[in-house]
Amino acid sequence: MARLVLKFGGTSVGDVDRIKNVARRVKAVVEQGNEVAVVVSAMSGATNQLVKWTTEVARLHDTREYDTVVATGEQVTIGLLAIALQEIGVPARSWMGWQVPIRTDGAHGSARIESVDTSEIEKGMKQGQVAVVAGFQGIGPDGRVTTLGRGGSDTSAVALAAAMKAERCDIYTDVDGVYTTDPRIVAKARKLDKITYEEMLEMASLGAKVLQTRSVELAMNHGVRVQVLSSFSDAPGTLVVDEDEIVEKEIVSGIAYSRDEAKITLRAVKDRPGVAATVFGALADAQINVDMIVQNVSADGEATDITFTVTRAQIDRALKVLSDLKGKLDYEKVLSDPAVTKVSIIGVGMRSHAGVAQRMFQALADKGINIQVISTSEIKVSVLIAEEYTELALRSLHTAYGLDAA
Amino acid sequence: MARLVLKFGGTSVGDVDRIKNVARRVKAVVEQGNEVAVVVSAMSGATNQLVKWTTEVARLHDTREYDTVVATGEQVTIGLLAIALQEIGVPARSWMGWQVPIRTDGAHGSARIESVDTSEIEKGMKQGQVAVVAGFQGIGPDGRVTTLGRGGSDTSAVALAAAMKAERCDIYTDVDGVYTTDPRIVAKARKLDKITYEEMLEMASLGAKVLQTRSVELAMNHGVRVQVLSSFSDAPGTLVVDEDEIVEKEIVSGIAYSRDEAKITLRAVKDRPGVAATVFGALADAQINVDMIVQNVSADGEATDITFTVTRAQIDRALKVLSDLKGKLDYEKVLSDPAVTKVSIIGVGMRSHAGVAQRMFQALADKGINIQVISTSEIKVSVLIAEEYTELALRSLHTAYGLDAA
Repeated sequence: MARLVLKFGGTSVGDVDRIKNVARRVKAVVEQGNEVAVVVSAMSGATNQLVKWTTEVARLHDTREYDTVVATGEQVTIGLLAIALQEIGVPARSWMGWQVPIRTDGAHGSARIESVDTSEIEKGMKQGQVAVVAGFQGIGPDGRVTTLGRGGSDTSAVALAAAMKAERCDIYTDVDGVYTTDPRIVAKARKLDKITYEEMLEMASLGAKVLQTRSVELAMNHGVRVQVLSSFSDAPGTLVVDEDEIVEKEIVSGIAYSRDEAKITLRAVKDRPGVAATVFGALADAQINVDMIVQNVSADGEATDITFTVTRAQIDRALKVLSDLKGKLDYEKVLSDPAVTKVSIIGVGMRSHAGVAQRMFQALADKGINIQVISTSEIKVSVLIAEEYTELALRSLHTAYGLDAA
Repeated sequence: MARLVLKFGGTSVGDVDRIKNVARRVKAVVEQGNEVAVVVSAMSGATNQLVKWTTEVARLHDTREYDTVVATGEQVTIGLLAIALQEIGVPARSWMGWQVPIRTDGAHGSARIESVDTSEIEKGMKQGQVAVVAGFQGIGPDGRVTTLGRGGSDTSAVALAAAMKAERCDIYTDVDGVYTTDPRIVAKARKLDKITYEEMLEMASLGAKVLQTRSVELAMNHGVRVQVLSSFSDAPGTLVVDEDEIVEKEIVSGIAYSRDEAKITLRAVKDRPGVAATVFGALADAQINVDMIVQNVSADGEATDITFTVTRAQIDRALKVLSDLKGKLDYEKVLSDPAVTKVSIIGVGMRSHAGVAQRMFQALADKGINIQVISTSEIKVSVLIAEEYTELALRSLHTAYGLDAA
């Protein structure tokens, strides 16, 4: 007998029939002799409607009231799923965040979980009752309902699994696992049986939207084994685990990409100490996240080019910040390009293999794809390329690293 | 400065624009220097959708889970109204039933309020913050969310007003007060300035759907002054108050009617001791509410007719119960008639006036309307008539008791 946490997202509980389908899946897991807690999101579309109402009432609103409104989405689903489970003979009861309780900090709208006390829940579970827990929500220090921000239900599930020392946290979603790359673009993409936390973390933060980054961090920190699988098929999914559990390590496990990038270049900046601090300090003050940064060494020791990327949504604000700096900073002009894509190869095997990045550069060069910016970490290499080459780059790299399905 | 509780029903908060309208009304009351708590229902239609989902998942369902789902309707409204108030410069915060707390018994789906602790709410109110409280919901002894049953928000408002010793509880609705009778039927119906609790109680339980019966009982028991008024106009409404406050008492204050009646007659029952107990005991066991009862004295001392009324929804079940009694009870046959209406005249002045009922009987006789059953209490006389005479009866009685508007 194992203790399992199952999590179902908004699409999986999108209507009454789907909720009944989830109930049958949960029943099957219970009948295998497991102690089960289920975490659910709001029915798909519900959260958007609730958010829309708050925005229609006032564009800027008290996030405490926003949370009160938006948290109702999950509350509806837990009640309905508990009823659906009981209807097919599975004892179940619903738990709101404040009832568990799942305690968070007071950052309404994007709260962080501080502690989860599962003692009450476990009492029922030990007697065969399925605990149906509202994802995405908790209770803040002031006794008011908080929400964790978009995708927070994954985090709720992992936090619950960590607190009750569950054997595994199964994240049911509309894809059947983590793929080597986006199968909509690369037909030969393969589903991975296993992936390490570190790789999953890079995949998640580099644009593969299977799991929320925060939930992977949490799983890694608490050693929670996570499985990503489909709520619409019975195929086994992808297991996200510790590196030790993976015997045969791939050099490159996956290729991620993000089109949500924009490139900005400060041309011919007078190269003085403190220049970078001035630029990126001002951007940070304006709450603009800068991702990749390249500063070319200036040939004559006088002027240099600084290139960096921001998300597309922030490009206009970033340009405004730079234009406001004109007095403090001596540069020729600002160039910007919103039509760029970041492509990343990810793999823990990189640590022990040389020449991994070189193979990437060569594969892209062979197709005539120009690399605009490069950034690397221990287990990934990211490059910025013109957006129009995205598909070609993904397919070439997928083949170059031997990831193609047979 | 007064302390007021304002209650807005589902139609008044039916969409974002109406919620903003309610916020403006509340603001006006605050600006008159009052301490204000607002109780709101779910947006009209929301509760029906939530109930529909629970029924689609399972026809019979755990009422605790039903309450978890259905209580979200009010939770959405309080958050949105709090935001709308803040947006126009009125400090406000939302309160769910469990946050106040409003404690109820454990009868999920139709819980009764046991206690309301307004000390937390009052802290904010004393500093000028409007407390926006979810109607219809509370928290049960097991820490789970309860709902009070349909129309429970009126009761929430009155209970809150009683607990915080409010000067008045204003129930905003889609009519502008309590009328002498249904103005859709009697064009000369007049809005009453004042009505006593007892009269309102009779009006509510006899079919005038302005206030929920339980809320009037509660107001009477705690001496809460209640005003019924329109959320769409500025006209003063009807004040529901203690008899002492009404100097000039009308003999008849109002005429109520209910079409939700069905008549059943047991013809030629052998008249033995215990016959009535057998019949009505069996109906009570089957959870069927019997309203009016008439037993004719049998002429020959052998057989008698027993006539009674039930709601139309229960007529088939009632007939089944009687047919099952055939072995125990000796009667000739059962007659039933679902096309009947109960018409009632109500007035505290009846206590001190003779001949009030007689005037009713005469007025109906003058129009050739046959009275099938009569039942009376201290402050009302009800008669059962054929449904087709409903409008004629109401208009005739309205005139006979001098209630017509000038």
